[in-house]
Amino acid sequence: MSDVKKVVLAYSGGLDTSVIVKWLQETYDCEVVTFTADIGQGEEVEPARAKAQALGVKEIYIEDLREEFVRDYVYPMFRANTIYEGEYLLGTSIARPLIAKRLIEIANQTGADAISHGATGKGNDQVRFELGAYALKPGVKVIAPWREWDLTSREKLMAYCQQHDIPVDFTSQKKKSPYSMDANLLHISYEGGNLEDPWVEAEEDMWRWSVAPEVAPDTPTYVELTYDKGDIVAIDGVPMRPHEVLEKLNHIGGDNGIGRLDIVENRYVGMKSRGCYETPGGTIMLRAHRAIESLTLDREEAHLKDELMPKYAEVIYNGYWWSPERRMLQAAIDETQKNVSGVVRMKLYKGSATVAGRKSDASLFDESIATFEDDAGAYDQKDAEGFIKLNALRLRIAAGKGRQQD
Amino acid sequence: MSDVKKVVLAYSGGLDTSVIVKWLQETYDCEVVTFTADIGQGEEVEPARAKAQALGVKEIYIEDLREEFVRDYVYPMFRANTIYEGEYLLGTSIARPLIAKRLIEIANQTGADAISHGATGKGNDQVRFELGAYALKPGVKVIAPWREWDLTSREKLMAYCQQHDIPVDFTSQKKKSPYSMDANLLHISYEGGNLEDPWVEAEEDMWRWSVAPEVAPDTPTYVELTYDKGDIVAIDGVPMRPHEVLEKLNHIGGDNGIGRLDIVENRYVGMKSRGCYETPGGTIMLRAHRAIESLTLDREEAHLKDELMPKYAEVIYNGYWWSPERRMLQAAIDETQKNVSGVVRMKLYKGSATVAGRKSDASLFDESIATFEDDAGAYDQKDAEGFIKLNALRLRIAAGKGRQQD
Amino acid sequence: MSDVKKVVLAYSGGLDTSVIVKWLQETYDCEVVTFTADIGQGEEVEPARAKAQALGVKEIYIEDLREEFVRDYVYPMFRANTIYEGEYLLGTSIARPLIAKRLIEIANQTGADAISHGATGKGNDQVRFELGAYALKPGVKVIAPWREWDLTSREKLMAYCQQHDIPVDFTSQKKKSPYSMDANLLHISYEGGNLEDPWVEAEEDMWRWSVAPEVAPDTPTYVELTYDKGDIVAIDGVPMRPHEVLEKLNHIGGDNGIGRLDIVENRYVGMKSRGCYETPGGTIMLRAHRAIESLTLDREEAHLKDELMPKYAEVIYNGYWWSPERRMLQAAIDETQKNVSGVVRMKLYKGSATVAGRKSDASLFDESIATFEDDAGAYDQKDAEGFIKLNALRLRIAAGKGRQQD
Amino acid sequence: MSDVKKVVLAYSGGLDTSVIVKWLQETYDCEVVTFTADIGQGEEVEPARAKAQALGVKEIYIEDLREEFVRDYVYPMFRANTIYEGEYLLGTSIARPLIAKRLIEIANQTGADAISHGATGKGNDQVRFELGAYALKPGVKVIAPWREWDLTSREKLMAYCQQHDIPVDFTSQKKKSPYSMDANLLHISYEGGNLEDPWVEAEEDMWRWSVAPEVAPDTPTYVELTYDKGDIVAIDGVPMRPHEVLEKLNHIGGDNGIGRLDIVENRYVGMKSRGCYETPGGTIMLRAHRAIESLTLDREEAHLKDELMPKYAEVIYNGYWWSPERRMLQAAIDETQKNVSGVVRMKLYKGSATVAGRKSDASLFDESIATFEDDAGAYDQKDAEGFIKLNALRLRIAAGKGRQQD
Repeated sequence: MSDVKKVVLAYSGGLDTSVIVKWLQETYDCEVVTFTADIGQGEEVEPARAKAQALGVKEIYIEDLREEFVRDYVYPMFRANTIYEGEYLLGTSIARPLIAKRLIEIANQTGADAISHGATGKGNDQVRFELGAYALKPGVKVIAPWREWDLTSREKLMAYCQQHDIPVDFTSQKKKSPYSMDANLLHISYEGGNLEDPWVEAEEDMWRWSVAPEVAPDTPTYVELTYDKGDIVAIDGVPMRPHEVLEKLNHIGGDNGIGRLDIVENRYVGMKSRGCYETPGGTIMLRAHRAIESLTLDREEAHLKDELMPKYAEVIYNGYWWSPERRMLQAAIDETQKNVSGVVRMKLYKGSATVAGRKSDASLFDESIATFEDDAGAYDQKDAEGFIKLNALRLRIAAGKGRQQD
Repeated sequence: MSDVKKVVLAYSGGLDTSVIVKWLQETYDCEVVTFTADIGQGEEVEPARAKAQALGVKEIYIEDLREEFVRDYVYPMFRANTIYEGEYLLGTSIARPLIAKRLIEIANQTGADAISHGATGKGNDQVRFELGAYALKPGVKVIAPWREWDLTSREKLMAYCQQHDIPVDFTSQKKKSPYSMDANLLHISYEGGNLEDPWVEAEEDMWRWSVAPEVAPDTPTYVELTYDKGDIVAIDGVPMRPHEVLEKLNHIGGDNGIGRLDIVENRYVGMKSRGCYETPGGTIMLRAHRAIESLTLDREEAHLKDELMPKYAEVIYNGYWWSPERRMLQAAIDETQKNVSGVVRMKLYKGSATVAGRKSDASLFDESIATFEDDAGAYDQKDAEGFIKLNALRLRIAAGKGRQQD
Repeated sequence: MSDVKKVVLAYSGGLDTSVIVKWLQETYDCEVVTFTADIGQGEEVEPARAKAQALGVKEIYIEDLREEFVRDYVYPMFRANTIYEGEYLLGTSIARPLIAKRLIEIANQTGADAISHGATGKGNDQVRFELGAYALKPGVKVIAPWREWDLTSREKLMAYCQQHDIPVDFTSQKKKSPYSMDANLLHISYEGGNLEDPWVEAEEDMWRWSVAPEVAPDTPTYVELTYDKGDIVAIDGVPMRPHEVLEKLNHIGGDNGIGRLDIVENRYVGMKSRGCYETPGGTIMLRAHRAIESLTLDREEAHLKDELMPKYAEVIYNGYWWSPERRMLQAAIDETQKNVSGVVRMKLYKGSATVAGRKSDASLFDESIATFEDDAGAYDQKDAEGFIKLNALRLRIAAGKGRQQD
Repeated sequence: MSDVKKVVLAYSGGLDTSVIVKWLQETYDCEVVTFTADIGQGEEVEPARAKAQALGVKEIYIEDLREEFVRDYVYPMFRANTIYEGEYLLGTSIARPLIAKRLIEIANQTGADAISHGATGKGNDQVRFELGAYALKPGVKVIAPWREWDLTSREKLMAYCQQHDIPVDFTSQKKKSPYSMDANLLHISYEGGNLEDPWVEAEEDMWRWSVAPEVAPDTPTYVELTYDKGDIVAIDGVPMRPHEVLEKLNHIGGDNGIGRLDIVENRYVGMKSRGCYETPGGTIMLRAHRAIESLTLDREEAHLKDELMPKYAEVIYNGYWWSPERRMLQAAIDETQKNVSGVVRMKLYKGSATVAGRKSDASLFDESIATFEDDAGAYDQKDAEGFIKLNALRLRIAAGKGRQQD
């Protein structure tokens, strides 16, 4: 373990990663660089500076990555209407590639030869951090303390704190919750505690960002989202930057009880786990994006996108953002978004986000053809006969030769 | 047009198909057999008998197909979590293959050489009826009056009625609505009227089966659905036949404002159209089925199902139920459902159907492995290192050779 | 039929299209513009000028499109290792979009309102021409004489010639063959005649470009192909333009009996047909491209390409080159070709094209890791245990719970 | 290491696995059961008995699995036209699930708690053996000596033999070759040695089963293969069992220089490797199966099979034969083979296997429709116009609204 000289740690300022700082210093006899990012988790990041200093850290990186996070990760992902296993909006998955990238960039800047993180050995996040790190710096050493040490319970961690004079108040942060949580601008996730029984409904006071549908306003809220090339650029006509859009939608959505999700999902490491997610803004964005695409995408590219989406979601969920296959899929997806521009009007009400209207200068919807009224010859109904006849030909030949028909 | 001797018509008893009876008799100088089915559209079918008799029809088929419809069409489709273009539950599409099959069976029984239907030349239904008919009886003659005649407006139809003594009250049925509607046990659809502008929200009084979320009960309704091999067999512990399940869920769902959908979709004939759909029971079933699968399906078969689903939905939407590719996909889907058994608890509230719990004797969820607590050695966290290292190997080699990394 | 003023015809100079010139002039009372292109079919195109003049055509377009054809159509297609139904290299399909594009461009230049072609109503080519034309000029009128006229036999055509003073020698071209043929730089196709019985082997004297393997040289020929970004840019070290590459490979391949194919394929119009194809250069290119990709592509992008290829082939075969879905797929394919550069050495011998070697500066093959000898720590075999254990986890959990295992 | 009592070893009788017997006995102080199978590798298996006895083994299993291997593994795989990465016929991959299954069955019979194999830590075979074993017996202990011991060179192995009195002649088997080889009825594989440079052509004397095309007979050999439901059941009219079919085709193919392959492939463990394969019978079977399918499969099921094939190949290559996803894909594939019956006539000549004819009572090829001659009204060419018009509609609408067209 003597070959590590300097390690960049993804540092939250909380108990676990504070213990990791000390443990790395001791175990690897190396310098620790801390990296703390604001990606919209809803906590101050600046306090992490004093804590890191108190732990003897000399190189401290604290950054506001909210705009980059939404612009370069969340937005591209939403262009594909991405959902994992039919339900999950990938809120945790999509934040990891950015953290991995910054860890490696800071390692390169500071001359560090290793990176470290506080993810456990059972979860997806270790995979996402490390695949990203290896893809971006193939010779990097990765230290995953939870896979190495024996501090496998809260009691042992607390004892370690006491032993090493790690201030007690480090433990006060966000861990009052009985749940294992993760938050960023796209969502909060909850795991563990009594969620481990998938038959048990989540307790109301677990949720942080949204009110219960039952206590949401009794009148609907309407909001208009302006799209440009697949991305939202304005809300109710007010231009906004990507992270401002998501922040705003989180507020409106949360106020209307929107975006709660309770699922059992399949982790990349091979087990099923139960998780609850709160994704108010993302839930609105998903539906709205489909609505603007419904007007502006060609049918066949829309269908092909739908066929590719589960693969794309899997790639992101499994941690392969920084991979050739993700870039390949992104190229296909982005190619389709050139005309995905227009306005979607959403109705938000007690847990539901529904589409109330959509319009676009690039619309492919043609009232003069679609109408039930007289279309003045825009469409010749007689064409349908030949269309059906030739599409049926292979079926007719087969039936005529006595093939199974039902 | 003299080569048709007898034609079986899909007859609703309404104005349009009553005109078709007469028009067929006149135009083709042939005998007309009517076929009217109860597939849960919510109207009496027996009155069609007297109307057909009044039009001179001698062979009249009136059938209750509700159980067959749900058991052999709706249920198999829901095993695949089928959605068209991310939104549409295929309520109209899935009813057509059954109608086509019965038209052909009756043609065979009555010695008819042709079938006829009242679908227009712009829509998907003509395709679905006719592909089914040709697949099941390759030499059948199909007569689609809307593609042939010049009765292209309501005025002309009414004039034709008067001319041919078709009783006026035939026109009183379901056509009070300004919308073109279609209903069966799975849904009601609405098209046309002021829906032709996709920016305009549907009027509240258009909807028939569901209350507005705003006027739904202020307290949630919980319901427990028991699955056996992918299909619901009981509600709240009470065993039910397939169509009873769907009827029941339509009532509960509709009472809670669930299942309204407003979309722009891509028709198989090449145009976009705007439609509203009301699918209370189906909306609950879709979410619940995913929930029971989340416990009982293996990850890889679940992901493969998700990749195949858009294709399967397209096959059904486009009218290829009676095709080798549908049977091929169904074989794959059904293979996965052997262990999809258990109970899902759904919460219904003002437009939302959310999963409150799921349990199964065939569950693959393993608390002892998934737990954040000590797992007593059920999972060796050190395995994760090798897992990540080998999964990263191709990325590291590429990065080591200077390939693009971001 | 009086609304057409000027029509651009894809004119080969042969009997059929010469009759079409006259028939269009008579039937539509319109001006005919002829367009004749050299796409490597192996016949002089210049003689078409005099023939067209003799038929009274005033605007005559004769063009050498060989380079554009290979560079912008054949090469992009080969980047995807495209094969239709496991066998067919799409030689006819890939030429049609270029012809359609030029027909429309000439229509725009000459102020024509219609285009016409000599493809029959049973084949794929009519679809490919017309989809291209409609996609590029939505209001264009398409005239397909074979679907309209009653000149349904050679005798009637000859009679028409006599009646209209169409010179007899027009009939002398390429129609000596009992087969329906089509040729361009990528292939010659043969259909009809005694090929209509799929049990009967093609006669030796049908083939035009290749010798029989039995009479090919008794010693192998080796050839080295240099790739840059997925395209061949040099043969045996000599830089060449795309069409020169294909011409050269056709010669070498044909001399060695390479590229004959005899299949039954599924046409887009719904029937099966038997065709023979001669694609000497393309057959070499397909194998060589896979070989250079085997060194330079990442595994996952390679596999994803393989999964998308059948769809891409279908899109081209069915005539949707000028479509959003083709552009979407092309974007994904082209994204992967940035590093597909290097040299492939092919061995050609009596009908077989096999890979004898491949090398690349961008190779991802790493001898130091792949070696069976000591790898000096480049790969830690112990990682494999964790890799396998976690990949097996879902299977173990299922087996532990008594799921079917075989 | 004291917790293993009895281990079943996949024992070839060669040097490596003989050393493993001794090493297991010593290292784990456990009983060793040997399992040796004839899967057509072309060596006597009975001599393994005396060798195992000499090593002190008491429970010795020697079995002829040739028929089961071809019937239950090779044949189902060929129904899918399976090829990995466009080239590889999966000869090694498909034998592993059977070995894994027998290892586990013997473990269950003999009360063994572990299995062991001689595959290295860099290859795919360890994964295939172990995934199979874990899937079939989740609690089994797997011992992979090559990942554990330090006998990492031939010299160390030989020294170990001397030390432990392992008879020298054990080393005489098949290891005279400088290549790492694997053989079964489907193929022989070669890796290592000078193949590690992908630019170097394989030496002629490496190949074992096939003559060089250059020295194959100067006249072609024709062979007729009779298919029933996707499987070959007779050769030249003589009924044969599956393994007899493959043996026969290996002989005929090898005599004609057929089935040599030289590729760079992507291993599941993340690296590229260069391998040569000799698959005479399989190469003939692949082409012939496509030919009989070309007559008997519906177009859409054929295309769907082609889209699923790469995934199916990957599943087998990666070792997931005993998985829900393989069963799911197999269900789809087998559903399509019900009518894949008939006869294919193959021409074999100096390295090429080409289709000379195909016929079937279940043929969907319809000469009366496909003909270039008059079809007596079987197909109405005018239908093509409507077919094209509606297929073009979405493209025309887009073009009409000014969308990008090229």
